[in-house]
Amino acid sequence: MLRAFLPRQPLLLGPTQNLVRCLSMSHSAVSSTLSNSSSNNNSNRPLVLVKSCGDLPQAKLPEYIKSTQGRLYHIIWRSAPPQNVFLVKKPWDTTVREAMIELINHLHQQYPAVNVIVSEDVADELVHETSTITKLFDPSIRHIIYTGTKSEIVDKTDLMVTLGGDGTILRGVSIFSNSIVPPVLSFAMGTLGFLLPFDFKHCQDTFKMVYENRSKALHRNRLECHVHREHCVTPDCENEEPIEMIHAMNDISLHRGNLPNLTAVDIFIDDEFFTTTVADGLVFATPTGSTAYSLSAGGSITHPLVPCILLTPICPRSLSFRPLILPNSSDIKIRLSKNNNRNQSIELTIDGIPQPDLRPGDELHVRSEEQIKCDHDKQQPVNGIMCIAKGKNDWTKDINELLGFNSGFKSQTNRKSNL
Amino acid sequence: MLRAFLPRQPLLLGPTQNLVRCLSMSHSAVSSTLSNSSSNNNSNRPLVLVKSCGDLPQAKLPEYIKSTQGRLYHIIWRSAPPQNVFLVKKPWDTTVREAMIELINHLHQQYPAVNVIVSEDVADELVHETSTITKLFDPSIRHIIYTGTKSEIVDKTDLMVTLGGDGTILRGVSIFSNSIVPPVLSFAMGTLGFLLPFDFKHCQDTFKMVYENRSKALHRNRLECHVHREHCVTPDCENEEPIEMIHAMNDISLHRGNLPNLTAVDIFIDDEFFTTTVADGLVFATPTGSTAYSLSAGGSITHPLVPCILLTPICPRSLSFRPLILPNSSDIKIRLSKNNNRNQSIELTIDGIPQPDLRPGDELHVRSEEQIKCDHDKQQPVNGIMCIAKGKNDWTKDINELLGFNSGFKSQTNRKSNL
Amino acid sequence: MLRAFLPRQPLLLGPTQNLVRCLSMSHSAVSSTLSNSSSNNNSNRPLVLVKSCGDLPQAKLPEYIKSTQGRLYHIIWRSAPPQNVFLVKKPWDTTVREAMIELINHLHQQYPAVNVIVSEDVADELVHETSTITKLFDPSIRHIIYTGTKSEIVDKTDLMVTLGGDGTILRGVSIFSNSIVPPVLSFAMGTLGFLLPFDFKHCQDTFKMVYENRSKALHRNRLECHVHREHCVTPDCENEEPIEMIHAMNDISLHRGNLPNLTAVDIFIDDEFFTTTVADGLVFATPTGSTAYSLSAGGSITHPLVPCILLTPICPRSLSFRPLILPNSSDIKIRLSKNNNRNQSIELTIDGIPQPDLRPGDELHVRSEEQIKCDHDKQQPVNGIMCIAKGKNDWTKDINELLGFNSGFKSQTNRKSNL
Amino acid sequence: MLRAFLPRQPLLLGPTQNLVRCLSMSHSAVSSTLSNSSSNNNSNRPLVLVKSCGDLPQAKLPEYIKSTQGRLYHIIWRSAPPQNVFLVKKPWDTTVREAMIELINHLHQQYPAVNVIVSEDVADELVHETSTITKLFDPSIRHIIYTGTKSEIVDKTDLMVTLGGDGTILRGVSIFSNSIVPPVLSFAMGTLGFLLPFDFKHCQDTFKMVYENRSKALHRNRLECHVHREHCVTPDCENEEPIEMIHAMNDISLHRGNLPNLTAVDIFIDDEFFTTTVADGLVFATPTGSTAYSLSAGGSITHPLVPCILLTPICPRSLSFRPLILPNSSDIKIRLSKNNNRNQSIELTIDGIPQPDLRPGDELHVRSEEQIKCDHDKQQPVNGIMCIAKGKNDWTKDINELLGFNSGFKSQTNRKSNL
Repeated sequence: MLRAFLPRQPLLLGPTQNLVRCLSMSHSAVSSTLSNSSSNNNSNRPLVLVKSCGDLPQAKLPEYIKSTQGRLYHIIWRSAPPQNVFLVKKPWDTTVREAMIELINHLHQQYPAVNVIVSEDVADELVHETSTITKLFDPSIRHIIYTGTKSEIVDKTDLMVTLGGDGTILRGVSIFSNSIVPPVLSFAMGTLGFLLPFDFKHCQDTFKMVYENRSKALHRNRLECHVHREHCVTPDCENEEPIEMIHAMNDISLHRGNLPNLTAVDIFIDDEFFTTTVADGLVFATPTGSTAYSLSAGGSITHPLVPCILLTPICPRSLSFRPLILPNSSDIKIRLSKNNNRNQSIELTIDGIPQPDLRPGDELHVRSEEQIKCDHDKQQPVNGIMCIAKGKNDWTKDINELLGFNSGFKSQTNRKSNL
Repeated sequence: MLRAFLPRQPLLLGPTQNLVRCLSMSHSAVSSTLSNSSSNNNSNRPLVLVKSCGDLPQAKLPEYIKSTQGRLYHIIWRSAPPQNVFLVKKPWDTTVREAMIELINHLHQQYPAVNVIVSEDVADELVHETSTITKLFDPSIRHIIYTGTKSEIVDKTDLMVTLGGDGTILRGVSIFSNSIVPPVLSFAMGTLGFLLPFDFKHCQDTFKMVYENRSKALHRNRLECHVHREHCVTPDCENEEPIEMIHAMNDISLHRGNLPNLTAVDIFIDDEFFTTTVADGLVFATPTGSTAYSLSAGGSITHPLVPCILLTPICPRSLSFRPLILPNSSDIKIRLSKNNNRNQSIELTIDGIPQPDLRPGDELHVRSEEQIKCDHDKQQPVNGIMCIAKGKNDWTKDINELLGFNSGFKSQTNRKSNL
Repeated sequence: MLRAFLPRQPLLLGPTQNLVRCLSMSHSAVSSTLSNSSSNNNSNRPLVLVKSCGDLPQAKLPEYIKSTQGRLYHIIWRSAPPQNVFLVKKPWDTTVREAMIELINHLHQQYPAVNVIVSEDVADELVHETSTITKLFDPSIRHIIYTGTKSEIVDKTDLMVTLGGDGTILRGVSIFSNSIVPPVLSFAMGTLGFLLPFDFKHCQDTFKMVYENRSKALHRNRLECHVHREHCVTPDCENEEPIEMIHAMNDISLHRGNLPNLTAVDIFIDDEFFTTTVADGLVFATPTGSTAYSLSAGGSITHPLVPCILLTPICPRSLSFRPLILPNSSDIKIRLSKNNNRNQSIELTIDGIPQPDLRPGDELHVRSEEQIKCDHDKQQPVNGIMCIAKGKNDWTKDINELLGFNSGFKSQTNRKSNL
Repeated sequence: MLRAFLPRQPLLLGPTQNLVRCLSMSHSAVSSTLSNSSSNNNSNRPLVLVKSCGDLPQAKLPEYIKSTQGRLYHIIWRSAPPQNVFLVKKPWDTTVREAMIELINHLHQQYPAVNVIVSEDVADELVHETSTITKLFDPSIRHIIYTGTKSEIVDKTDLMVTLGGDGTILRGVSIFSNSIVPPVLSFAMGTLGFLLPFDFKHCQDTFKMVYENRSKALHRNRLECHVHREHCVTPDCENEEPIEMIHAMNDISLHRGNLPNLTAVDIFIDDEFFTTTVADGLVFATPTGSTAYSLSAGGSITHPLVPCILLTPICPRSLSFRPLILPNSSDIKIRLSKNNNRNQSIELTIDGIPQPDLRPGDELHVRSEEQIKCDHDKQQPVNGIMCIAKGKNDWTKDINELLGFNSGFKSQTNRKSNL
């Protein structure tokens, strides 16, 4: 994946009371607002209804069956097709909004059993941008859109569909930190990305392929990290709940931020002291994230199927800190060094989302999400992210097309003939 | 492992007829020569007998049981302890010769059931350096030493013991190319190396630990490569049999050699064209070899437990050929590009041993040796190399001590106090 | 020089009124405080008098005569030896304070014509740490110490002497930004550094060598940069005077700081558009600074006598932004790209000292300080910094000892013998 | 310049007797052959006469006057325009041959005072490829072409014109090793290159600009190296005359060649031991050569106006051998280390042309060609190479267009809008 940076605000930021108000308001407001123009319409029913997703049936995850090629997994919903589809987009973005409504229209027309879920801020957007909505939604159908709290969405989603770039996928997946992630179907909106094999132009065919159990997916591991806070002495400490655990699809990075001072960080691997690094920072990346920040910092390009953790230093004060590829079984611990300057803290960023700083005495633990677990009959991963793929060689193509890998010098193609 | 270069001569070079003569000669010569000093001894038996290993019992490989830590394997010979022990050293090296005889004395004294096997050139060395032998061998025991052709040694060896550096291990293991490798116990002779956890000083205790099923091993994958020759047109072609398959513990490298011209090489991954590289060469490395040539060429340091293939370019004519980490399931094909200059060939080197050049039209296939296969009851690798280890964190220590990883700048340890 | 970071506060920050108060207070306070212990002494004169350096004679810069070796310059004060000596140390550091007083004692004893100048905060330190002072100052001499505003010090200094690390030199030299820098004599206080050829242990002999026109110096170029501010819209804009010009001994760096977003920066060279870089930042370094931040970011190690500007990217979002070595005649312009994200500003740091952020529309100009100018009779640089050196090969030694350049792998010194 | 490799045969290899025969033969052969078709022509004069350049007037080098911009030099032939023009091409290349004859026709038509000189092998080519010649040469003019030994050409040439790629320029310039190089005008034949600002399509206008003193040139430094041979013991030693001195426009490289063993090389700078490097090799490059082999080996891109020597290691067995930028005043000495393996020799290549190997005990000295010398009235370089340039920013353009410098990732141009 490419490097993507997200603002500090999490996806579902709105305070709950606001949400409640918004929802109840939206119920009527959307009804009234939208039906205003057709007030002389005796039906008077609202065009779009926003409902809580709390009452939807529980999520039904598919089975993943390893293909004979041995790389991709068939995605099979045994009992019924995916019913609760969580659509993710960047909030308040006009272009993508239109595409989303186009997809909602299609789903509501062709797949009456499908329930469309969106995040609360996207629901808000639909409520407040009524002028757009009235124009775009198919008026011949009564549209019901579901939303809810983060944990409600996690509980209900059978399939996640993202519209946008790699950052949109990071956003959507970040909701499922500490949870099982449903299969992810990502549509590119005109841009390119490592996780964007499908163009939105073909969204109908592509969705059908997934719906009919004809899709395959690439399994991508996540990193999981948790912070052990030593103590809370600052006045605003109460607001900083100890981070239980966060999953990263791309990377976990530590950085000096805007402090000019370098920070000395002790790295332990498998409970043994490994090294103390003085650097601008450190990146721990999944193979998926090997083409993001780690690449900029000098790390190798790593295929998503290599089970490993990349440890790449950012501007180290050493000539000999070569990037490392560690096994997935590694247990990595980071501690701000005791001879760290002036009690300085260090910035922690996970998948581009800033987290509370690490302070001296705090510890950061990084591991790979647990490995694929063997079932008796079928090998089936229960962790990581199943990204619906076009083919088994998407990666090779992306390396060339997205990164301009191994671009030859534009000269002397037949240089020997001219010497 | 560190980069090690070996001469073109394979370990067991001598023609068979020479061996036969050597052995029959040695039989009497060693007898007479060695028994000279004890000619009045009525026993008149020779001090050292060299016998063919062909009559020894077939090799009995141990079981490998994954330790609860999940990284190392217990090595367990179920039916009987290891009986046929193949001792490997650099031929004609005086220092190591003395150590080898010291170990042979110990084995013959303490483990009468153990049969010591050496390669034919080491047997030759023992035959011809009689002055040393008479001084060093324990005269109270009748020493029998076994030798044989490469394939005989492969058939008989239960345990390989190497005395020397990383290069000695490469040599010893190269005999088992295309075969199952017995467990490898390596003793350092005063030097350091990635595969040298044990000092020869403690060889008796260490051997006992292995003999008594108390040792653990790290599993190291090998690469396998084979060359498809397009045609043979040069006069010396008859001498170049097509390489069936060769296994590499460290790396497979392609290089322009002493030709000043760069070579254009086409790389295919999983049957799809990936890139054409114009470079001095390419290195395909195992994680074990990630600290050898690949490191010099700019590759990442990779833990031996990461199942992957490193593809590192050597002086590429591109700003954007970043080293790659490919999955073990990759099927890599290399072909000299059609627009290659002047029908130029390219050098092929496997684990430091030069191979016949690749010529235009030839193809080189590189894959990882097959993965660990699941048995019904126990997961047990049947490929790769089981290297007897000291502990699970040998690697971390070696990276620091051998490579000088992340050496800080030797200044301003308390630099903030002096600003 | 190594990378050194300084706090945002400039060396001579205190508002002038504060200084005046401090000085007038110090005058009496030091007198009374210090004379307390000798109150029965009828002389009743203070041990240390702090005076304004405004009345000292104007600075007399020496002549620099190129040595026959062609690398170093002889430093010759023609009319009289250096009289006004500016001593620089890190303020409020106990260890270095004692060394400074030791040197002051020596100068006052042996060189009565020498006037010791210190910065205002160091003068404050001497005033307030009376307990130390009374113990350390030689009571047999009446010590007069001069201080003044930044511009007064610049006007008066014949020779700068620094006690501390590379950071202390940066501090001292930064006062002379936009001015001619006097020769710099640097003493190491137990640490090592690229600009620290002399140990404080030998400070008396070393100072004598300089005083008697027997020293040689290495000429180090500076970079000069200035910022064109487009507009001032923020409330605190008044405090941000447009930076007229700042000189850098080490480097000028741009960085995203704690913003997660990357910044697109347009680079122009000699009035032509060169490239747009998306990166964490950029470093422009002198050869002196090539071993500081630029080195961490991947730049080459550059000898201080190479007249050039290093342009090294920090974590670029490109595989092909190789570090650049530009000629001293280059005129470099940096502008935040129009398609920069969200009106984001970027951090500017000069020689480790944070500066006001660059905002969209602002331009940063970077050039080398003017080249050595030819006089009719003698070639004599009028810009840059003359650093008193031990020998012409200090640099080679430092590269090895400070950076651990080209450290061999700690193994197999005689590796061929063990293959 | 880009990396170019040349065969071991120098440009003017033919033994002198062969040349004499060739010339005398050519005189008649060309006459008779060429005049065959016009045998009924009573003039019976040959179409092309090849004459010795020995009788031409001595070379007249122009004055170089620094432009006010301070980067390029005006090229002014004061007394008369350039008269003896040395045309360089790759021998026996059909395409370029036609272009060369086109240019010769133009010169002979428009500039009767101009004498065209070619190397002996190009003269041979013209002699033997008569069918082409008769078709291409303008029959209305009697063409005289001059040739001669290497030293004769060096003595006579006023201006060098090359047709081909960067390699052709290297070839042409290599003749002037140890001599003053005339100005170089290079035409691109459809390919791109760092030294190819002019397209052959515009050769007439471009030549006129040079002829009329309206051209400007970029001064490029050369390296000079010489080898001190310790002894000659091999049978073929007689053929290896001690290399007196060779100049390099691009680079001087040392390489292990096809020996698998690494070589330990001692590097001395300014008569002090600097480091021992164990590596595949070393590159010493001019800034012109910074984009050739040095770039592939990891060196920085260096502007041709930076007076420096690049020292870039090739695959060093060290994590901390960062490329170095040394001053032009450096005196570098290379010696095969005493603890070098097995008396191994090392390959020496200068500007892509293989040289006799360095053997243990031999020393290689590398320095920059002498610096620009000041004349009393005008600063004028007497060394290096004056390459006629299009504008002062050719380099910036070439870096982008030829190397694909700083290629952005081809994705998410407006990535923030899709997060």
